[in-house]
Amino acid sequence: MTDAPRLMRIALDPSEMEEWTAAMTTVLAEEEMPVEIAPAGTPDAEIDYLVYNYDSGVHDFAPFARLRAILNTWAGVEAVVGKIAWPEHVPFCRMVEPGLTEGMVEYFAGHAMRYHLDIDRFQANSAAGRWDKWSPPLARDRTVGVLGLGALGRATAERLVAMGFRVTGWARSAKDIPGVTCHHGAEGLMALLNSAEILVVILPLTPDTTNVLNAETLAYLPEGACIINAGRGPLIDDDALLAALASGHVRHATLDVFREEPLPQAHPYWRHPGVTVTPHIAAVTRARTACQAITAQIRRDLAGQTLCHIVDPVRGY
Amino acid sequence: MTDAPRLMRIALDPSEMEEWTAAMTTVLAEEEMPVEIAPAGTPDAEIDYLVYNYDSGVHDFAPFARLRAILNTWAGVEAVVGKIAWPEHVPFCRMVEPGLTEGMVEYFAGHAMRYHLDIDRFQANSAAGRWDKWSPPLARDRTVGVLGLGALGRATAERLVAMGFRVTGWARSAKDIPGVTCHHGAEGLMALLNSAEILVVILPLTPDTTNVLNAETLAYLPEGACIINAGRGPLIDDDALLAALASGHVRHATLDVFREEPLPQAHPYWRHPGVTVTPHIAAVTRARTACQAITAQIRRDLAGQTLCHIVDPVRGY
Repeated sequence: MTDAPRLMRIALDPSEMEEWTAAMTTVLAEEEMPVEIAPAGTPDAEIDYLVYNYDSGVHDFAPFARLRAILNTWAGVEAVVGKIAWPEHVPFCRMVEPGLTEGMVEYFAGHAMRYHLDIDRFQANSAAGRWDKWSPPLARDRTVGVLGLGALGRATAERLVAMGFRVTGWARSAKDIPGVTCHHGAEGLMALLNSAEILVVILPLTPDTTNVLNAETLAYLPEGACIINAGRGPLIDDDALLAALASGHVRHATLDVFREEPLPQAHPYWRHPGVTVTPHIAAVTRARTACQAITAQIRRDLAGQTLCHIVDPVRGY
Repeated sequence: MTDAPRLMRIALDPSEMEEWTAAMTTVLAEEEMPVEIAPAGTPDAEIDYLVYNYDSGVHDFAPFARLRAILNTWAGVEAVVGKIAWPEHVPFCRMVEPGLTEGMVEYFAGHAMRYHLDIDRFQANSAAGRWDKWSPPLARDRTVGVLGLGALGRATAERLVAMGFRVTGWARSAKDIPGVTCHHGAEGLMALLNSAEILVVILPLTPDTTNVLNAETLAYLPEGACIINAGRGPLIDDDALLAALASGHVRHATLDVFREEPLPQAHPYWRHPGVTVTPHIAAVTRARTACQAITAQIRRDLAGQTLCHIVDPVRGY
């Protein structure tokens, strides 16, 4: 190992460059990292670490001959997987940082509570002058199902447990989370949907999960279930969801992600009384905490340890 | 101590008698308590335990010569304190039961999250077809103030801490709750209000706390603060709150309790865009868990221990 500092390049959407460069400069100094942001003009072949997202326009990693890791600033990687290739020996890591995770957990927790308490009903009664003495059940008598138990789904399930809900979870492979009834596989999906009065959707988007919520699977949900999707738009068959909302089988949906973003003005989700559209804000990567997550990865690399959250191009996340 | 079972009378609002008698019969049997519900016609003088609320119409305890405890089924006791007297040697206990506490905690947690995420803003944008990419701060950067740190306030503060908020609390006397910055006294109240972006109100109603939120104290709140009151209506000076809402100093209020209930149709809180009225449903005593709380009190009495949550008529709660 040489004494010369490792070189980092930040390659993001141009609108993000200033904020991230400032945050990274601060964090590298604070943590006395033996890493420098490469001066402009440094050849690609001399870069050790690439802080990256797809919108940077960098889609060819071949010139980066010395690259030790690609550190993605997004949690989702379907923009990359199957579309651009990276050298097999270079770890390509998804972003998992506390700010993004906390924001996502809070989004799900808040909308789950809105559904649990039926706050909309009280708002409508309040606006109409109706003293209707209905009260909601306790969270301990309410089942929330979490589709997807990766870092974000797991943190969400844990928070929902702490908030008193009966929580079930589903993932491709078997998981074990204290307080959460975990299912997996096709039969497990049916079991989870069957009891989920509130359904939290935070699966990665892969060929297997595309349209995982369709006419057949939505029918498994209990009558009047609510859905919160902050995973990816194509996890849901939009026509099937609109039909389930029209029949009342699904009472309401809060959707943060869509097949096309911004959601086109003509889309029936806009202005739909059974849908709340939020503009892909459930999980925002925050530069400061994200840079700290990146330096933690680099510290692992410098210590000869395997990095975390490495994307498997075959699995797709 | 005699072998004959102790005798209990249930004296509640007539509409509640059937449900509570059934629940209590079940719980006494399940727990093999040496206590029986007194048959109709049993003289008052033979009653050991009175399961009670003010709406029963029983307002004179003198005939209950043998009474060992009055077990109130309501958490609030201002209907009783200063209005009717009970023998000094008989403990009069407020209801603290997990169902009521859980419901109250969930009410505050849900409405706090609604304000924290500004769900109303997203609902309005969704109804208007606006893709406005604003995102809320993290809970770790949001201060929630809890006015009142009794059993319900403490449980609420603890839940808010578990949900990631910066939590401050205020009570008449000094308290120590892990993760909560606790204030007390007049200066402490100012400090709490000064930082409370979301204010949770769960104080008992006493002469000291009547109109505790008035024009002067509301002015301490940060611009745009939100208020959730599920304590008692007279804790807030209604005219002062309406003025603070009109000026925008207070952004929104969710109110579960009022000076007159049901809230009169002509009251300006109804249909107010800055107010959500809920019909005194934040904490509903649930017969089953309340009966278990009552048998736990009786078990303490039978073991010669002091009961919990005994009302001090001078303090007022």
